[in-house]
Amino acid sequence: MVKLVALFTAPSDSDVFDRHYREIHLPLIERWPGLRRLEAGKVTGAVGGAAPYYLIAEMYFDDADALRAAMRSPEGRAAGDDLQTFAKGLVTMLYVAVS
Amino acid sequence: MVKLVALFTAPSDSDVFDRHYREIHLPLIERWPGLRRLEAGKVTGAVGGAAPYYLIAEMYFDDADALRAAMRSPEGRAAGDDLQTFAKGLVTMLYVAVS
Repeated sequence: MVKLVALFTAPSDSDVFDRHYREIHLPLIERWPGLRRLEAGKVTGAVGGAAPYYLIAEMYFDDADALRAAMRSPEGRAAGDDLQTFAKGLVTMLYVAVS
Repeated sequence: MVKLVALFTAPSDSDVFDRHYREIHLPLIERWPGLRRLEAGKVTGAVGGAAPYYLIAEMYFDDADALRAAMRSPEGRAAGDDLQTFAKGLVTMLYVAVS
């Protein structure tokens, strides 16, 4: 199992960001071919200091090939394009091999 | 559901780190009271650049009270103490509300 982890730093307007994320971005991701699980969560704090992130989202796939195919699919490109409209400069995306 | 997310930057000696994490640290976390799920994964890359993290681990609990109780338990303190022996300065720990 692999996952794509998106770490978002805090947006300037969290209401606008949250609405776009929930109403537009998540539905785009849910259409990704091969997506096995999607988990999104708000960061509520950090141990010993200010939280460096605002939101964390994780998209699970069977393997790296499936993840790569999803990102290259029309649905993957639509989600990537959408990211640029509301989260430009806010997101770090990690490829993770789940053990 | 809530989770504690640990993001580790790259250690200077990944073999030593991996062995300690797998053989000593994970068994300490697995004893946390109230732990519902533990998922650890190696970061294999990042979209559009170098990956800022090496390892991501997530510990799931029913709610914030359960997570707090686990961190304050003897098992939680043992894991916290152990972190300082092999991952000092490498780890960022986030509290996340899973939606």
